[in-house]
Amino acid sequence: MKVAKFGGSSVASADMLQKVANIIQEDAERKFIVVSAPGKRFDDDIKVTDLFIKLGEQHISGKETESTLQQITERFLSITKELDLSDEIVERIKKETTFLLKETGNTAHLKDALKAMGEDSLARVLSAYLNKIGLNANYVNPKDAGIIVSDQPGDAQVLDSSYEKIYQLRNKEGISVIPGFFGYTEKGVLTTFPRGGSDITGSIIAAGVEADLYENFTDVSSVYCVNPNIVENPVEIKALTYKEMRELSYSGFSVFHDEALIPAFNKNIPVCIKNTNEPQAPGTMIVAKKENYNGPVVGIASDKGFSSIYVGKYLMNRELGFGRNLLNILVEEGISFEHAPSGIDSMSVIVRSNQLTEKKEERLIRRIKQELNVDNISINHGLGMVVIVGEGMSQRVNVAAIATTAIAKAGVNIQMINQGSSDVSMMFGIREEDIDVTVKSLYQDFFESSMPVR
Amino acid sequence: MKVAKFGGSSVASADMLQKVANIIQEDAERKFIVVSAPGKRFDDDIKVTDLFIKLGEQHISGKETESTLQQITERFLSITKELDLSDEIVERIKKETTFLLKETGNTAHLKDALKAMGEDSLARVLSAYLNKIGLNANYVNPKDAGIIVSDQPGDAQVLDSSYEKIYQLRNKEGISVIPGFFGYTEKGVLTTFPRGGSDITGSIIAAGVEADLYENFTDVSSVYCVNPNIVENPVEIKALTYKEMRELSYSGFSVFHDEALIPAFNKNIPVCIKNTNEPQAPGTMIVAKKENYNGPVVGIASDKGFSSIYVGKYLMNRELGFGRNLLNILVEEGISFEHAPSGIDSMSVIVRSNQLTEKKEERLIRRIKQELNVDNISINHGLGMVVIVGEGMSQRVNVAAIATTAIAKAGVNIQMINQGSSDVSMMFGIREEDIDVTVKSLYQDFFESSMPVR
Repeated sequence: MKVAKFGGSSVASADMLQKVANIIQEDAERKFIVVSAPGKRFDDDIKVTDLFIKLGEQHISGKETESTLQQITERFLSITKELDLSDEIVERIKKETTFLLKETGNTAHLKDALKAMGEDSLARVLSAYLNKIGLNANYVNPKDAGIIVSDQPGDAQVLDSSYEKIYQLRNKEGISVIPGFFGYTEKGVLTTFPRGGSDITGSIIAAGVEADLYENFTDVSSVYCVNPNIVENPVEIKALTYKEMRELSYSGFSVFHDEALIPAFNKNIPVCIKNTNEPQAPGTMIVAKKENYNGPVVGIASDKGFSSIYVGKYLMNRELGFGRNLLNILVEEGISFEHAPSGIDSMSVIVRSNQLTEKKEERLIRRIKQELNVDNISINHGLGMVVIVGEGMSQRVNVAAIATTAIAKAGVNIQMINQGSSDVSMMFGIREEDIDVTVKSLYQDFFESSMPVR
Repeated sequence: MKVAKFGGSSVASADMLQKVANIIQEDAERKFIVVSAPGKRFDDDIKVTDLFIKLGEQHISGKETESTLQQITERFLSITKELDLSDEIVERIKKETTFLLKETGNTAHLKDALKAMGEDSLARVLSAYLNKIGLNANYVNPKDAGIIVSDQPGDAQVLDSSYEKIYQLRNKEGISVIPGFFGYTEKGVLTTFPRGGSDITGSIIAAGVEADLYENFTDVSSVYCVNPNIVENPVEIKALTYKEMRELSYSGFSVFHDEALIPAFNKNIPVCIKNTNEPQAPGTMIVAKKENYNGPVVGIASDKGFSSIYVGKYLMNRELGFGRNLLNILVEEGISFEHAPSGIDSMSVIVRSNQLTEKKEERLIRRIKQELNVDNISINHGLGMVVIVGEGMSQRVNVAAIATTAIAKAGVNIQMINQGSSDVSMMFGIREEDIDVTVKSLYQDFFESSMPVR
C-alpha cells in the first residue's frame, strides 16, 4: 500500500493531471492520493491558493470579488474542459465560495476555508478524471478520512486521536483522493496546516494507514547533495536517513519542510521524493537506516544570517554557573542559541541574527556586563554556517581533516567548528561571503576527488 | 629593578646557594630575592618543609619530635657549615620551633607557622651569606615587606592594600631577601599561601615594586612546547604570552601554577623562567604581547580525566531554554563544565571526571530524564583533551587543517572539536589512550615539518 502526494506544480494543468493519472494507474499499490492546489504553470503564473487568499482579502476590505472568482473558475474550467469533465465541480466552487463569503464572518476561519478550496476542488477534479478513465476512485474529505486537528487556524497540529480512524481507510474500496493542507477540529471546523500543508497531510495519511511507502511527487527527480545554485548539476542523493534529511533541511536545504515528515518518520515509513515529469527515475529515498554508505558525507548545506556574542572574563573557568547565567540572560531575552563554543576565559554564543534588534543588542550587552561583570563583550554579525551531513561520520577518522583542508584550500578562515555532539553533522562557522567558495571546495573534495575516507 | 625567585631545588644545598649568590652578584638590578625552603638534593631526599609538617603532626599526635627537629637542624647545619656561617641561625630554628610547639595551640596557625620556618630560615641563611661575600643584603620579613593576606590558613590570598607598602621597598638600601610562601593577616598572624606559594610571593613583590622583570629560577632552562615525557627533547619556547601560558598550564602543563603569576600579569611585568644551573641560558620569557610569531602554535598540551554527558531530544532546537536548563541541573549538582558542543537535536557537556561519582551520575541521569524529558542520555568516561595553543591562531587559514590532518595520520578519531571562542587555542577531544600518538603527530607537523602555515 502506497500513499502518493502530488505537489502544486504536479497538478497545475490538465496535461500534468494526465501524467498524475498515468502514475496512479501504473501501480495498483497507489491507493491513497493526496493533492495540493494547482500551482504555477509558468514563472509569473499565480497559484490558485493565492487567488483564494486575494479573494478573501478583497471581501474583508469590502472590495468587489467578482473578477478574482472569475479568474479562479476560469483556471479550473481550463482544466475540466481539457479533461472533458462536467462543469459541475466549477459550479460548486462558485456556489461554495459565494456561500462562504455570505455566511461566514470575517474570521480566521473564513480565510482557512477559502485557502482550502484550491486543494479541495482539485481533489474532486482528479477523482472525477480517474473515474472517467475507468478507475474506481473517490474524493474523500479530510473529515471523513479522520484528520482531526488542533484549533489553530493556519497553524493546525494533527491530534493523535486521528490515526485510529485513518487506519480504517485501508478497508475502503478503490482509490481515495484526499485534498491536502487541512483538517477539522473536534468541533468540526475546517482548519489549515502551516507551510508545507499538503506534505503534512500526505505524511499523516501514510502514518495512519501504515503505508509501505510515502511517495512525494514534486518537480525534481531527486534531492541534490548540495545547493545547485552553488554547484552546477551536483550529485543526486539516492538515499538518506531521516536524521540526515533533518540536518540538511534545517541547515538551509529547501526540498521541503522536514517537520512535515515527522508523522511518517514516527511510524518508520520510508519516503520517496519523485518527479511527476520523470516517474521512472528512482528518486531519493528517505529511510530510518541506510544499509551501506557510499561516502561519509551525504550532503553539504549552508545558511546565512548568524551572529556571535563573544564574552571574555579572566578566570571564567573558576566560576561555577557562568555558562548557565549567560544562557539564562539569552532565554530571558527570548533568544535561542545554535552553538556555544567556549575557551578557558571566554565563551561565544552563536544565534540567528533575525532574533536580534539594535535595542535588544544594547540591552543584552548592558545586562551581560552588569550581571556577569565580564571583561569584554562583543557581538559580530554576518556569520555563515556550512554543515557537512552524513550519519556515522564521527566514526570516520579523517572527515574533519578532509573538510578543514578543503576549507583552507579555498583560503577561508574557519571562525568556529562545532563537532562532538551530533554523529550526523559537522558545522563550520565562516564569513557569509565565503559560503560559496567553501561549499564548492568541500563538494570537490568529498564528491569529486577520490580521496580515501577512512 | 628585578625580582629573582629561587625555587626549592635552587636552594637545596650550600653549593646551590653559592650558584644563587653568583647569580645575584652578576646583576646589580637583582635587588629583591625571594626564596623557597631547601628542596630535594637527590631523588629520595626529603624537603625541609615536609620535615616541618611531619614535626607538627608528631607534636599534635603527642609523639616525640626530637629526632625530626634534629634532622632539620642537621640539614641547615650542613649548609651553614659549608658556607662558613655562624650557628646562630640554626640555634634560632631550635628555639623558635620549641617555642611554637609550647606556646601555640594545636591550631591551623601552628601548622602554618611551622610550614613557613623552612623559607624563613633559608632567607636568613642566604642574606647572611650574601653579606659574608661582601654584598649589602638584608633579611626582610614578609610583615615588614608589607604582604598582608586574608585569614585563610594554607590558602591565603594577598590583599590589594599590600601593594602600596611593598612599593616602599624600592627605597630600601641594598638587596632584600624575602622568604616566600607566607604573609601576615591584618591581625598580624602568619598565614601561608596555597600550592606554588613562593612563586606567589615573588609575583606579589614584582608587582608591588613594579619590577622591570620577574625572574623565576628553577631547574629547567626553559619551558618546552610539549610534554618531554611524550616527545623526546622537544623545542624550547623562547617567548609566550600570559594567555598562552595560562592555556598551557590549564591544560596539563606543570611548569608552575599559572595563577601564581596573576599579580605580575596584572601589572604587565614580564616574567622569565630561568635555570639556576645554567643562568646564561636565555630561558623562557612570558610577556603580555609577542612581537613576531615563529609559528602559529607555541605549545601542545594534553590532559586526561574528562567525561561527556550526551543528551538527545527530537526537536531540541525548537525548545527555548533547553541548554540553559541542562547547564542549570549541572550547576545545582555543583558540576562545572569545560565544553558544550551541540547539534540540532543533541547537546553534549564535557566535564572533568573527578566531579562525578556513581551516585551523582545516577542522580544526574534521573534528573535530566525527568526534568527535561529527553529521548536518550549517556555518560562516557575516559575522554582526553589535546590543546594546541598559540595567540592569533584563529587568524591562520590552515591551522585546523594541519591539526586535524595530523590527528588523522595518527589514526585517531576526533570525538570533539572546540574552536571559535578563544583566539589562543583549539581543543580536540579524543580517547585517553590516544593522547600520546596524537600529541606526537601534532608535534611533528607543527614543529618538525616545514608545512607552510598561512
